[in-house]
Amino acid sequence: MTLRKPSCVVLGGGGFIGTNLCRRLADSGHRVRAFGRRQPFADGLSGVEWHAGDFNDTASVAAAIESFDVVFHLIHATMPQAADLDIQGDVRNNVLPSIALLEQCHRAGTKRVVFASSGGTVYGNARQIPTPETAPTDPICAYGISKLAIEKYLALFEHRFGLGFRVLRIANPYGPFQFALKNQGVIAALIGRALRDEPVEIWGDGSVVRDFVFAEDVADALIAAATDQGDERVFNIGGGQGRSLRDIVAAIEHAMGKRLRLEWKPARALDVPVSVVSVERAARVLHWVPATPFESGLERTIAWATATAALPATGGASVRLSPETR
Amino acid sequence: MTLRKPSCVVLGGGGFIGTNLCRRLADSGHRVRAFGRRQPFADGLSGVEWHAGDFNDTASVAAAIESFDVVFHLIHATMPQAADLDIQGDVRNNVLPSIALLEQCHRAGTKRVVFASSGGTVYGNARQIPTPETAPTDPICAYGISKLAIEKYLALFEHRFGLGFRVLRIANPYGPFQFALKNQGVIAALIGRALRDEPVEIWGDGSVVRDFVFAEDVADALIAAATDQGDERVFNIGGGQGRSLRDIVAAIEHAMGKRLRLEWKPARALDVPVSVVSVERAARVLHWVPATPFESGLERTIAWATATAALPATGGASVRLSPETR
Repeated sequence: MTLRKPSCVVLGGGGFIGTNLCRRLADSGHRVRAFGRRQPFADGLSGVEWHAGDFNDTASVAAAIESFDVVFHLIHATMPQAADLDIQGDVRNNVLPSIALLEQCHRAGTKRVVFASSGGTVYGNARQIPTPETAPTDPICAYGISKLAIEKYLALFEHRFGLGFRVLRIANPYGPFQFALKNQGVIAALIGRALRDEPVEIWGDGSVVRDFVFAEDVADALIAAATDQGDERVFNIGGGQGRSLRDIVAAIEHAMGKRLRLEWKPARALDVPVSVVSVERAARVLHWVPATPFESGLERTIAWATATAALPATGGASVRLSPETR
Repeated sequence: MTLRKPSCVVLGGGGFIGTNLCRRLADSGHRVRAFGRRQPFADGLSGVEWHAGDFNDTASVAAAIESFDVVFHLIHATMPQAADLDIQGDVRNNVLPSIALLEQCHRAGTKRVVFASSGGTVYGNARQIPTPETAPTDPICAYGISKLAIEKYLALFEHRFGLGFRVLRIANPYGPFQFALKNQGVIAALIGRALRDEPVEIWGDGSVVRDFVFAEDVADALIAAATDQGDERVFNIGGGQGRSLRDIVAAIEHAMGKRLRLEWKPARALDVPVSVVSVERAARVLHWVPATPFESGLERTIAWATATAALPATGGASVRLSPETR
């Protein structure tokens, strides 16, 4: 594929990473269509065509992807914790429709599928930190297993039908357009609670280390992966260093100039103690680096959250929160 | 688990490996129940309790496994080629009911699940031959992906609930009780055609190398895995060396004293050129070796096929045959 500006359809284009990606694509002059069930940040998506549909509805997906060069697959219907509570449902709602998507891409002549996999879960308890793409993939949560299975089906479709693909194993993304209420990310949740002066339940003692990467940097990595001509298929995308949950809390308290109301809860079995990915391959092959310093990214995230603080309240109850690793 | 003679239920106990395993277990004094849809070799299963049921029927599986110490999971509803033609069906009929099985095992207090995975497909085009368990797992067929996914769910259930497990990645098994008509194995198929003087379609030029292991040796490995107390979970089970399809044809022609009627067809994308697994780990940890020399195994397989030659004819049409790798 030698197109400099491929037309792009973003499955999950109304979501957190999807909105960031669509904005970046539109800004750089790509034809962009966003596909999803909801478009909560419609104002942020000027210049982006919206195509409403359900990922489980094959006909709807087929109609959405027709004639586009690149399909970004950013949809995962379940969060890590929910996946573990209904493992079969996780397979039904994510693996099966992803296979259906690949069948439709093959039929439609899609040039490439770029898939958002999970840097925080596919490796499980990695022995090597930062973890390279060649490390063993032994997930300890169902979410990681279904992400990994979808990666394998992508490789199968390339092997069998020549359907191009790239996989980005994204660490913990944070930034504008991340919902504070869906426990999508610890940073968004902490900022949201701080803005509303609500208490935060944190599972574990705060020593868990995560790898936070700014969402606009993730969008740039996805765009680089769409046209990359190298031989690699799988890339870690992370922030380049690990930060403990305690460090994150301190950074947010410092940036916002207020104390968080923390409630400590027992750790969960699905949380690995340390998750930091090596981004050496992405730097070498995609010429991508996590360009946004953490402090700047955090500031911009707080500014966005403050500006959109017309968020509905949680009703007073403290919301459960953990350093969700995706 | 320190039981010397655990009670065992064999899912797929009426099939090829299952029948061999049940016989071996019964001979060595274990309480054995076989579970499956059909029991084609009922005569071979004296001393084995038969429990008819469908793997897709969770209640039926739950009833079958209750109170047994060890569950051998030998069921895969689809053959490699069929899996590739209906990838979603392969997931629905194998991955989903396997997750349901693990949920039932957790509920029933099963001590260990021993799973028959696939030495010939989970690695894909392996760079290292013979392939160790630590090699990358990049299947090039859907069958290999679903086997791999089930392996990962086993590890998840151990991590989360303490449900014990062992995975045997079995190469190409051959021996008595393998159907000649289901394209289950190239050796059974070749012998069957030879006995009926039927032509054989072979996909590829006969240079593909496979790793044949005698079914009774496989049964011994499964039994060893049921009580192993080591730290490893995944074991390759193979014959210790590779043989080309041409070599297999020559060995069968020599042993049977007749020429096979071969029809050569183009190779298929799902067949890797070479598949040979390293059995060093099984030797070291399970104290298992592929004890049966190939010539003896072949002789016993031919003797069994000849004795059961009351097999129905295929109707004159030549049956498609490939070196199915499982």
